[in-house]
Amino acid sequence: MASCVMKRAGSSAIQSVSAALRIRSYAKIASGTDIVSAAPNVSLQKARTWDEGVDSKFSTTPIKDIFKDKKVVIFGLPGAYTGVCSSKHVPPYKDNIEKFKAKGIDSVVCVAINDPYTMHAWAEKLQAKDAIEFYGDFDGSFHKSLELVTDLSGALLGTRSERWSAYVVDGKVKTLNVEEAPSDVKVSGADTILGQI
Amino acid sequence: MASCVMKRAGSSAIQSVSAALRIRSYAKIASGTDIVSAAPNVSLQKARTWDEGVDSKFSTTPIKDIFKDKKVVIFGLPGAYTGVCSSKHVPPYKDNIEKFKAKGIDSVVCVAINDPYTMHAWAEKLQAKDAIEFYGDFDGSFHKSLELVTDLSGALLGTRSERWSAYVVDGKVKTLNVEEAPSDVKVSGADTILGQI
Repeated sequence: MASCVMKRAGSSAIQSVSAALRIRSYAKIASGTDIVSAAPNVSLQKARTWDEGVDSKFSTTPIKDIFKDKKVVIFGLPGAYTGVCSSKHVPPYKDNIEKFKAKGIDSVVCVAINDPYTMHAWAEKLQAKDAIEFYGDFDGSFHKSLELVTDLSGALLGTRSERWSAYVVDGKVKTLNVEEAPSDVKVSGADTILGQI
Repeated sequence: MASCVMKRAGSSAIQSVSAALRIRSYAKIASGTDIVSAAPNVSLQKARTWDEGVDSKFSTTPIKDIFKDKKVVIFGLPGAYTGVCSSKHVPPYKDNIEKFKAKGIDSVVCVAINDPYTMHAWAEKLQAKDAIEFYGDFDGSFHKSLELVTDLSGALLGTRSERWSAYVVDGKVKTLNVEEAPSDVKVSGADTILGQI
């Protein structure tokens, strides 16, 4: 099912969100960008239960620790529990994890503007947390640094991430794919980036 | 277990959050306030699945529809999936639903600064959605209007709700209970408000 629930609803709210997205500015990062430099002093929050969060003293993960000396596939999406599209975005990454590993990828990372506890619960529901590393970007600082945020208030979500994917080697962006609308999974899916590695 | 995981961790992040909360200003509402007037033109978002959100054209619920001509017990908390305290805050409301009904309460409402899809998933996990009406306040406009927000960035949550409860009759606040720290469930629990009705 390539089409998205956001589209089939056809409401004015959705149409206005889609229209707004079509005239959005481009992301700050591109092929060749150092993603660590593009998001200086930014950290993400590894998905975990609340109790694990407390035990970790609410620790965060600096961006450089995610990308330094590693081959990483990262993909971002508008949010946990946001329906068919999100659910169809994550599973192909999970199902193709062995293909990513075979191509030398050290980690496949999923990130969204959510807190790490919600991300954990969602990852568990998707049974994807063993294959994929899930991170929260609770204050949106990572996506704001990369200029990959969009206003999805029309869908009752507020400021969220675009739907995007990137192949990053030792912090350098090799390929970046950003959907024209976050309801699409045309260029940011697992199959596309597998062909780009 | 009256104590909270936020407290037993004893991290500096938690201590600074707790310290900040002890000097917070009081809420805008109090006994006698008209909650509808205090949050003009504000809506909440009924917890639902993404697909239900699409089918509803992302409809929202004006505050007056929740309170008008009704006896309502409402309680707010820092967020879905935020551990022992949240889990221990909701269940007594669920377990005592018949006592609330016997006292003439039309609805028991739980609200947090989360999107309605996350709220729905969490309510399902708690098996509480049949007893309690869950609402999201995705952009925090309801809690900001009532001056019941606090910065929980130290706990990787960002701007969230205080932990609070209120008994509201036809929009008029009869009693309001706001915890000194959101990690507490000392005054905002089901037992307390049952004794205030």
